[in-house]
Amino acid sequence: MNKDRFSFELLGQDTSGARLGKFYTPHGEVDTPIFMPVGTAAAMKAMTMEQLKATGAQIMLSNAYHLNIQPGSAMIEKFGGLHSFMGWNGPILTDSGGFQVFSLPGRKVDDQGVSFRHEKNSNLIRLTPEDSIRIQNELGADIIMAFDECVEYPTTYEYAKQSLDRTLNWAKRCKDAHKKKEQALFGISQGAVFKDLRKEGIQALTDLDFPGYALGGLSVGEGIDNMKKVLDFSTPWLPDNKPRYVMGIGLPDDILEAVERGVDMMDCVIPTKYARSGTLFTNWGKIRISNREFKTDKFPVDTSCDCYTCTNFTRAYIHHLFAANEILGATLTSIHNVQFFLNLTKQIRTAIKNRCFLKYKAEFLELYHRKDKKKGPSSKPGKYKKR
Amino acid sequence: MNKDRFSFELLGQDTSGARLGKFYTPHGEVDTPIFMPVGTAAAMKAMTMEQLKATGAQIMLSNAYHLNIQPGSAMIEKFGGLHSFMGWNGPILTDSGGFQVFSLPGRKVDDQGVSFRHEKNSNLIRLTPEDSIRIQNELGADIIMAFDECVEYPTTYEYAKQSLDRTLNWAKRCKDAHKKKEQALFGISQGAVFKDLRKEGIQALTDLDFPGYALGGLSVGEGIDNMKKVLDFSTPWLPDNKPRYVMGIGLPDDILEAVERGVDMMDCVIPTKYARSGTLFTNWGKIRISNREFKTDKFPVDTSCDCYTCTNFTRAYIHHLFAANEILGATLTSIHNVQFFLNLTKQIRTAIKNRCFLKYKAEFLELYHRKDKKKGPSSKPGKYKKR
Repeated sequence: MNKDRFSFELLGQDTSGARLGKFYTPHGEVDTPIFMPVGTAAAMKAMTMEQLKATGAQIMLSNAYHLNIQPGSAMIEKFGGLHSFMGWNGPILTDSGGFQVFSLPGRKVDDQGVSFRHEKNSNLIRLTPEDSIRIQNELGADIIMAFDECVEYPTTYEYAKQSLDRTLNWAKRCKDAHKKKEQALFGISQGAVFKDLRKEGIQALTDLDFPGYALGGLSVGEGIDNMKKVLDFSTPWLPDNKPRYVMGIGLPDDILEAVERGVDMMDCVIPTKYARSGTLFTNWGKIRISNREFKTDKFPVDTSCDCYTCTNFTRAYIHHLFAANEILGATLTSIHNVQFFLNLTKQIRTAIKNRCFLKYKAEFLELYHRKDKKKGPSSKPGKYKKR
Repeated sequence: MNKDRFSFELLGQDTSGARLGKFYTPHGEVDTPIFMPVGTAAAMKAMTMEQLKATGAQIMLSNAYHLNIQPGSAMIEKFGGLHSFMGWNGPILTDSGGFQVFSLPGRKVDDQGVSFRHEKNSNLIRLTPEDSIRIQNELGADIIMAFDECVEYPTTYEYAKQSLDRTLNWAKRCKDAHKKKEQALFGISQGAVFKDLRKEGIQALTDLDFPGYALGGLSVGEGIDNMKKVLDFSTPWLPDNKPRYVMGIGLPDDILEAVERGVDMMDCVIPTKYARSGTLFTNWGKIRISNREFKTDKFPVDTSCDCYTCTNFTRAYIHHLFAANEILGATLTSIHNVQFFLNLTKQIRTAIKNRCFLKYKAEFLELYHRKDKKKGPSSKPGKYKKR
């Protein structure tokens, strides 16, 4: 196993489709299934890299589109790349910018690339597959992504077909443009929710032979049932010995459904985004920490959580931080939410190892979606040891 | 030495007036002269307590006025007091609220206390010396402050005299109201810039025999020369064996001038407040990190600083965080600025120990105020080892 380059090992599979694996990068190993926290602009929002590491994060994401605009990828290269610039020595994955560009209003797509206006100064920007790869080579992440067209939901079959052809053409151009062999370039499958298009796309992509494959074009409003359907028919077409990455998910339910369908890697801004607005994930479901009921609550956010926030502070204190508009509130909630998602994928890996993923999933979801929250320890202080 | 209660030891004095000391509290020892970072609302702005501890902070401040409004001191008492509520196990000092109340528009002062409107909901609030002590007893800080009237600058001799009499009367009432012997109640001297009033006030206060004395009514716009003048004539009237605390200072110059005049304790929100707006303290003076010159600067904020920020990140990265509007920018700059002030008082203590405080002060200020900043390492990357 050459650990200086990207490689993936499938370690086992549960009786469900859930897979246990590990991948190696020049900056360390990652156990799969894994959730990857997102630090879009070369920073985790409201967290230091030290705090991120303490949550158990094994890999983090940044975004080529945002970093190309501010501070510029050439500058980051001069600083020794993203790892050195932002002080994160573990594995990094950069998104190609495809998803961001296609969410901008007024974009124009042609077969060569995309034109769009700068979000702040309205300058016209042109981005091609070759540009995206150059930017990602300059950023120097361990895993980089092909530049694709991400189609919104719903779309017509005709547009999805036309866009798929373009994305496949771009995938080949990305591969040709990619020069840094220490970075692994993943292909991205498109095809919206159309089975034959997904099949055609995956076959063409796997013919190009990438070290990993992403399923793109999900988390664009298609809903969990469509997502499950696409995963159900897509993952069997993907090679067993390469990691599968579903981009942009998600919530605990999405993660469990994806893992069950053989997905190894997931990412989302949800943990930090929800944290800043005071929505916290617990094993008993989500809570809004600014709710009145938490004003005098002496328990940690999640009684079973071992994060810095839960081991040191009460819900009442975090409620107070939001009431007093203290930045520390965003930091403590971000730490908790990120660790919640990492603990979730860690428990998932244990369950797969124990060949009981479906049982774990059912138990997790039963508690997580329980209507009668009063029965959870979260609301019965009297029965539990006080802090 | 009973370390379960507050006590102060004067360890030495430099040939200037600078004093070296140590005080003991139920939550630990503090070396003096000391700078005390301020966490007004039971939180350091943009920093965790873990990060505060790592800066070398030995004691922190919170504010009785703010905490009484949100979340309420009775509630904090139910949570085991401030230490437990905010997760800071070191010494804490709470300000009485006097300074805050007197900066509110529309306040009404009478001999019994102060009436004012709630900043947010406009409810009428009444605060007396007895209230302030009760609130501070509930909060449970190691050092609490008498409730005083802080007079603005400039003021008339007549008003200053009338206000001093009231403050002295309140000091006695605070002492009578104070019930928790594990908390040390400090007296606060007023009298504006009038020598005979300061003398009268200090004599009356010392007759009441407090374990420590603050010089209040400074940092209210009187300017550094007036502050020096007041300190020059005030500190000799204070007993040697009690700590002297100047409230609300300040900038490095103010701190050095105060220490030279025998002051042991200082506090200010400047480090964190300036940090959030991108103004950073270095041995070569203040810098504005958002300035264009730092966009590609590979050096740490201060080349001689050992804080988390300086040992891990470049000025360019912090410049980027401000440009990208990342909360992490406020965190990293707050950590640096707080540690800068703590390093400054640490160096001051070393200089006093070495009986060369005035020499240290002159050298520090020469570098700090140097006009030709280009000569500092801050602007000549080529001559210094790259990170």
